[in-house]
Amino acid sequence: MPQFPTLENIQAAARRIDSYIHQTPVLTCQALNEITGLSLFLKCENFQKIGAFKFRGGSNTVMSLSEAEAARGVATHSSGNHAQAIALAAKMRGIAAHIVMPESAPEIKQKAVAGYGAQITLCKPTLQARESTLQAVVDRTGATFIHPYNDPRVITGQATCAMELFQQVSDLDAIITPVGGGGLISGTALSASYLSPQTAVYGAEPNGADDAMRSFRSGILHPSVNPQTIADGLLTSLGERPFDIIKKYVKDIAGVSEAGIIRAMRMIWERMKIIVETSSAVPLGMLLENDLGLAGKRVGIIISGGNVDLSRLPWTS
Amino acid sequence: MPQFPTLENIQAAARRIDSYIHQTPVLTCQALNEITGLSLFLKCENFQKIGAFKFRGGSNTVMSLSEAEAARGVATHSSGNHAQAIALAAKMRGIAAHIVMPESAPEIKQKAVAGYGAQITLCKPTLQARESTLQAVVDRTGATFIHPYNDPRVITGQATCAMELFQQVSDLDAIITPVGGGGLISGTALSASYLSPQTAVYGAEPNGADDAMRSFRSGILHPSVNPQTIADGLLTSLGERPFDIIKKYVKDIAGVSEAGIIRAMRMIWERMKIIVETSSAVPLGMLLENDLGLAGKRVGIIISGGNVDLSRLPWTS
Repeated sequence: MPQFPTLENIQAAARRIDSYIHQTPVLTCQALNEITGLSLFLKCENFQKIGAFKFRGGSNTVMSLSEAEAARGVATHSSGNHAQAIALAAKMRGIAAHIVMPESAPEIKQKAVAGYGAQITLCKPTLQARESTLQAVVDRTGATFIHPYNDPRVITGQATCAMELFQQVSDLDAIITPVGGGGLISGTALSASYLSPQTAVYGAEPNGADDAMRSFRSGILHPSVNPQTIADGLLTSLGERPFDIIKKYVKDIAGVSEAGIIRAMRMIWERMKIIVETSSAVPLGMLLENDLGLAGKRVGIIISGGNVDLSRLPWTS
Repeated sequence: MPQFPTLENIQAAARRIDSYIHQTPVLTCQALNEITGLSLFLKCENFQKIGAFKFRGGSNTVMSLSEAEAARGVATHSSGNHAQAIALAAKMRGIAAHIVMPESAPEIKQKAVAGYGAQITLCKPTLQARESTLQAVVDRTGATFIHPYNDPRVITGQATCAMELFQQVSDLDAIITPVGGGGLISGTALSASYLSPQTAVYGAEPNGADDAMRSFRSGILHPSVNPQTIADGLLTSLGERPFDIIKKYVKDIAGVSEAGIIRAMRMIWERMKIIVETSSAVPLGMLLENDLGLAGKRVGIIISGGNVDLSRLPWTS
């Protein structure tokens, strides 16, 4: 049986990252409650450092390293929020960060990572190129590779988000998170199992990238094959470690159409006046297209991030 | 000497509207502090009911009416946030609201007002047509006209915003608000004079609609003549009653270019992940283009609203 992070691990992570992260607010919105028929509590990780929950897992891992490990730096490959998370956490610890990014990564994302002082190595935009380039960087520098989700230290860091939410809001009947690699939902499910076992944990996924749903329902890990979705943070395949936790502690995973994602994103922007990225709109979109039997219940949604290219919005392009 | 609303008036207004309004959060942002060299505290009225501070003045006035007055309903002419504020406050009190709107008002704004159950009367898009149409509505219904800013009950309601801010943040060296008709800045200046006299109050105005700046500097009320600015909430002329208060309690009013407004708006969206309307970006834009001698100081900014047509953003059109 796999060894899962414990409650003590999560509590230690929360203490470890406390002075580095923001305690993010929980927002409510009467208009969204009326539209959904639920009592919604949005945990706003779009207000987290680097604009996404990824900083929790990234900072927990970077701050967990021994002095000897830390001295050799950290490395990862990512074109998204994980890259910024590792870069900022490394800067805070005063160590080197080596980020492998595909040449196709938008300049704004490269600039954000470079702005935290990280060393960027560009590669061809294939998974194989990313992995081989990363291996070369690790071989050369001795840096510690930090995987974006298939790592218990990362999962433990992400688990602090739901732990914080349980401290802010009592008696949640359910929590819903988006599912990409599975770091957020598995951490959320662990925290719920320890701290609020009456809270059902659901995953929300684009129909066009439904590997976690298929894996959950079959019990066998299915990789993501040619996923197509505007929710670019959820293109990645579910990881093995998160999947072990999901199988045990998640109640269900359900999908949402592309139009439903865009509709939910715009609804959050218009009604709540907050900026959320496409991936963050997936749980609300899923709720609007699926009946989970939660009518009238208290439902937490983790708003995973708010990093959006404001020049290209889904409803204007 | 004009009679200004007193501290007791403002405290009574706060109690009167307490159960109807949101106590809005104050947000800070390290990135914006670094860019401006200030310690900024953003009072987020974009999260207020109807998405703008206007609901404070509107609800205070509607809830102040006698039973006999209220029974005849309320009326106003507006194509913007004041219309929604009056419509919602009237709905909450269970009375009729008659809103005169120019035919040119965007359908989304007409729908929002109609959604609160208000009676809409369309008119030609001129000030004269608005006023004569309103007069006909008032004559027919006996409704009480609620002016958007030239009314002590409205100014007193807007003053509750700064009062709340002083309760949330101590030792502010300055507060900056946008200036349109002057309801927000005059209420802010009154609250500061009573509750935090060491806090200097500044107004921020588009260079293309600088009637308040010219009036303030000359001491004579200059109407707005053919104003041109993307900050459509600030096109209106400064009112007489606000001007009397501004002359006595405001430290200075300074301007910002159109490019500066757009730059500041995008900066707030990108760095803070909140949606603010063009008018709300005017104070930050003004700070970035003017040296007020506030380096290192604690500066409050009232984010006046968040009602934006998401299909047409200033940086994409």
